[in-house]
Amino acid sequence: MVKVKVLVAGSIGLDEISTPFGSVKDVPGGSATFASLASSIFSKTAMLGSIGKDFPKEKLKVFESKGIDLSALQENSQKSMRWKAHYGVDVNVAHTDLFEANALAELRPEVPEQFKELDYAFIGNFDPDAQLALLSSFKKKPKVFVSDTMDYYIKSKKEKVLEVVKAADIALMNDSEARMLFNTPNLAKAAQEILKLNSKYAVIKKGEHGCLLFSKSTHFSCIGYPLENVLDPTGCGDSFAGAFIGYLASTEDFSEKNLRKAIVSASAVASFNAESFSFERLSQVTKKDVKERVKEFKEFAKF
Amino acid sequence: MVKVKVLVAGSIGLDEISTPFGSVKDVPGGSATFASLASSIFSKTAMLGSIGKDFPKEKLKVFESKGIDLSALQENSQKSMRWKAHYGVDVNVAHTDLFEANALAELRPEVPEQFKELDYAFIGNFDPDAQLALLSSFKKKPKVFVSDTMDYYIKSKKEKVLEVVKAADIALMNDSEARMLFNTPNLAKAAQEILKLNSKYAVIKKGEHGCLLFSKSTHFSCIGYPLENVLDPTGCGDSFAGAFIGYLASTEDFSEKNLRKAIVSASAVASFNAESFSFERLSQVTKKDVKERVKEFKEFAKF
Repeated sequence: MVKVKVLVAGSIGLDEISTPFGSVKDVPGGSATFASLASSIFSKTAMLGSIGKDFPKEKLKVFESKGIDLSALQENSQKSMRWKAHYGVDVNVAHTDLFEANALAELRPEVPEQFKELDYAFIGNFDPDAQLALLSSFKKKPKVFVSDTMDYYIKSKKEKVLEVVKAADIALMNDSEARMLFNTPNLAKAAQEILKLNSKYAVIKKGEHGCLLFSKSTHFSCIGYPLENVLDPTGCGDSFAGAFIGYLASTEDFSEKNLRKAIVSASAVASFNAESFSFERLSQVTKKDVKERVKEFKEFAKF
Repeated sequence: MVKVKVLVAGSIGLDEISTPFGSVKDVPGGSATFASLASSIFSKTAMLGSIGKDFPKEKLKVFESKGIDLSALQENSQKSMRWKAHYGVDVNVAHTDLFEANALAELRPEVPEQFKELDYAFIGNFDPDAQLALLSSFKKKPKVFVSDTMDYYIKSKKEKVLEVVKAADIALMNDSEARMLFNTPNLAKAAQEILKLNSKYAVIKKGEHGCLLFSKSTHFSCIGYPLENVLDPTGCGDSFAGAFIGYLASTEDFSEKNLRKAIVSASAVASFNAESFSFERLSQVTKKDVKERVKEFKEFAKF
């Protein structure tokens, strides 16, 4: 049996999504679902999160079919987390209409014994107190801890969010979150602030516009993939994060060159995710698909 | 004497600009000012536009010092065009507080005799009727006609804007304008609509996020330059357009490979322009500066 290499933790729930291209109700969503499916393309992955009694069991089979270890999945007697959102003409921005934490609020932020010594952890957006508790429940700090956050927590628990960023080897966030967290319109400046906090790398996700990698010595800008058939951008950022850590874990190479490759592969995975609602397309993506799309990224970016 | 190769037409006026980094009043602005200065880095350029009695004559010396031919400049008895705008945290979006056409409304859309056979023309954002009149006043259609537009005319004269795009060899517009003109959130789709109208290339400018080139057979995505010291993005799109046509005119090479190079050089020029208010920085940019920044673009985009 393949050993688990990556722990992906985050929210799991049921979404109601409306985009200019259609709408769906009660489909699986949450940061951990997208991120673990994306990570599993490259590395054996365990998913940590919390679901309610109403979470459709047949949907868990999708994760099992991808070899995802579900032994860290917690089930409680609540309803599952619910998120209702819509996207307007600017599909980069999700407008939240309803959020109920439900089962997510009951999550025990404790890494199970069998995963306490893993080297690769992605903790997706969550309450930052829970992120920190989860991180300190590892026996030793993972070699690569990738963090994420969201505007809600930046508004309500800014200091804790900064602690998470400080603890991260690679801190991910969206462009609007980076601007908000460091109170600057300038992304390059916000990235410098992240690096000052001690994170080795800052990765700023810009939705359809690609993403930016900054370290103290370098900068990489990854283009966005020119998708003609976007259906739903929900989970693209999480798919990016999951694929990114899965790729790093599969290569065990933290050179800047390989980080750039990880970012392009992660961008490719995220672009597939936008082609369907929920994780229908994402759960079908193979390594070969990713390789082919990475070739296109190369073609599209060269001059 | 070097012969003029490029005609740049557009608005010229006085701006009052406020950004999160400062504010200025009565500084020279308008699409033709930025575009002709940018074009002049690469090719001998003539500027066509209309100024009022109040336009500061010493500012015209800046253009003369760059070798820009001012014989197509019209002066009338009006005040110069006035534009007052502010930028918020998202410095990609200018919010117009006041616009007075003044001298611009008096512009005679007629190319002077000495420029009627030029091969390279950029007609910046203007009333589309005036753009079309200006274009048909050439003796023969220029070899390369690059167009631009803005949201105001898309709202008020959409059919005419589409005629301009149809006439263009290379149609430039901002991402928000492309979305508005073709009523789609999807930029790749909007670009396909531009190409269907008969334009050979569509170039979609995305401000700090770079820009996209589409033809029927290819796609190129140029990253944005990670400027830490943006002061004022006003005129960056016009600087891009001017540098783009100036570069093409200086190379006379319309291969896809060279178009990509033109786009990166134009992006480099635009990034310099954002480093100051008005055209203070832009008017100092040399070919050597551009070459060095293009090297950085290469470094930042490679994987």
